[in-house]
Amino acid sequence: MAEHKGKRIILAKRPEGMPTEQHLRLESMDIPSPDNGQMLLRTIYLSLDPYMRGRMSSAKSYVQPVAVGAPMEGGTVCEVIESRLAGYQPGDIVSAYTGWQTHDLSDGTMVRKIDPAQAPITTHLGVMGMPGFTAYVGLLELGRPASGETVVVSAASGAVGQVVGQIAGINGCRVVGIAGTDAKCAFIKEELGFDAAVKHRAEDFPETLAKACPDGIDVYFENVGGRVLSAVLPNLNDFSRMPVCGLIAHYNDTALPAGPDQLPAFMGVVLTRRVKVHGFINFDYVHLMPDFLKDMSTWIREGKVVYKEDVIDGLENAVSAFQGLLEGRNFGKLIIRVGEDPTL
Amino acid sequence: MAEHKGKRIILAKRPEGMPTEQHLRLESMDIPSPDNGQMLLRTIYLSLDPYMRGRMSSAKSYVQPVAVGAPMEGGTVCEVIESRLAGYQPGDIVSAYTGWQTHDLSDGTMVRKIDPAQAPITTHLGVMGMPGFTAYVGLLELGRPASGETVVVSAASGAVGQVVGQIAGINGCRVVGIAGTDAKCAFIKEELGFDAAVKHRAEDFPETLAKACPDGIDVYFENVGGRVLSAVLPNLNDFSRMPVCGLIAHYNDTALPAGPDQLPAFMGVVLTRRVKVHGFINFDYVHLMPDFLKDMSTWIREGKVVYKEDVIDGLENAVSAFQGLLEGRNFGKLIIRVGEDPTL
Repeated sequence: MAEHKGKRIILAKRPEGMPTEQHLRLESMDIPSPDNGQMLLRTIYLSLDPYMRGRMSSAKSYVQPVAVGAPMEGGTVCEVIESRLAGYQPGDIVSAYTGWQTHDLSDGTMVRKIDPAQAPITTHLGVMGMPGFTAYVGLLELGRPASGETVVVSAASGAVGQVVGQIAGINGCRVVGIAGTDAKCAFIKEELGFDAAVKHRAEDFPETLAKACPDGIDVYFENVGGRVLSAVLPNLNDFSRMPVCGLIAHYNDTALPAGPDQLPAFMGVVLTRRVKVHGFINFDYVHLMPDFLKDMSTWIREGKVVYKEDVIDGLENAVSAFQGLLEGRNFGKLIIRVGEDPTL
Repeated sequence: MAEHKGKRIILAKRPEGMPTEQHLRLESMDIPSPDNGQMLLRTIYLSLDPYMRGRMSSAKSYVQPVAVGAPMEGGTVCEVIESRLAGYQPGDIVSAYTGWQTHDLSDGTMVRKIDPAQAPITTHLGVMGMPGFTAYVGLLELGRPASGETVVVSAASGAVGQVVGQIAGINGCRVVGIAGTDAKCAFIKEELGFDAAVKHRAEDFPETLAKACPDGIDVYFENVGGRVLSAVLPNLNDFSRMPVCGLIAHYNDTALPAGPDQLPAFMGVVLTRRVKVHGFINFDYVHLMPDFLKDMSTWIREGKVVYKEDVIDGLENAVSAFQGLLEGRNFGKLIIRVGEDPTL
């Protein structure tokens, strides 16, 4: 090995509000050696995703939070450096869950080999990975869009939103994306083929959204919450579905937001229009992973699903990149290049 | 006919907040004569139900509101007085939808003959009628409770809540009812056989509710909203279901309630615990009516479903009775005896 020291970012302190380098601390580490039944992985790419904000908090959630002092968790694409594990050779490229660090040992749990000839290896953190799978199960299993229906997705240029809109389009739906900037709106319309794009930072956002949905909304794929959700509510049709995938507008909330209390109005819409609101986590649907990989690789090959990545160099830039993600400053699937990509 | 004048209560003015006799005006009326294809019905019993508050408002809902100047709508049990309609004879007892008045003409639409020998005719406004059917479809179709799960129902001594809890018990669930007084709590435990009853007007309501649900809540049948919903949220289990049937705490709201805004916290629970929140209206499930009538008549006959009615004499008392319903002052299914019951 050329390097004798690695780097990692640990959760030094649980954040309240926006996490900073005070909470996420870069430190050097010794590179460990694999025991029998283990391999040493070198991180090439680290995925940054909004759900990670939840892992930094101790609030009750669907998985244990990251322990204080431990490296932050996260999905990665890695190269096998040294292997004492059957089935893996140095030079193999794998998707793994080794977190915010340059190196890690693995016994093969949550590791899947990647064929770099099939698609750029970064796609296994995006369209072919967790975000793509999340879009697939949320839209198709919970949203169940019918041809001709209107599907609205928030955070539409993000890793999940991009895919939601494109799968909805493949299913014959009218697709309306909500995003934060003119560039993102142009991208989802012109490059991803959405029927309409609405900028939520605009003054007249509620009116523009209503105009973009002349037949109302049949499926709202919820990624953000906040004022985007408030603007969606009046447009929900009878029997509409709302898969709840994320609430990025609230991840840094340190207290309940100021009033008025919107919950009674929300419940009133749910009741009178018979809306189905359904929270979900992709890993509850792992039985659909083979279908997803088959469908998605076909769609990518046929050019029906395209994607945009936002790749930032260097683990030392992960914290500011993650802050940008929570503020909507990234554009496309956010990925940190932690080390050299041997496939380029 | 002994009477030459009838009485009715019209919607004189749309209420904001609690409706009073200013909005719901009692007036006399001429008793009409049936044309060919019509019959004259005399109201024996009028059902008062929370949904009627929605019909008084012009806000967008699942049906048209009652027009200003028209008699208030509502389910009734009537006697046929005069018939020029095939299949109906004077003396027949029917369930109908003739509203807050002593008499009405009918062409048979929404009319169903009742066999008074089978059960007291009032039950067709309660357990065997719309409230019973609402409980049946909401719990079984949307809540889908499994044996051993915990089912919580609010407004538990009301027309719908009584039935929800008893059907949950028949399905082998732990049943916890939420009601507003000690007498109602004693009733649902001792007479309806709920496993636990919790008084929402008590200071320590959230703690008592949590103690009554040691394994969390798998199905929350929502009738009320407000602070009852807030106390339920922390106890919802992963993959729990929330059929939304009513929001009686908010029907007289004239503006959004004061903050803080509870909606983000609600959505956070929906997301992380994968809760399914589903609004419904009983008439979307009419295909299940035959199953319901069969099951419910069996359960009543076997003593598995019992019921409590709160019968108040005189159409002139309907407005104050309806106010009491919105404030939780009634105890059991609220019915107005509008005219003499020939089956007693």
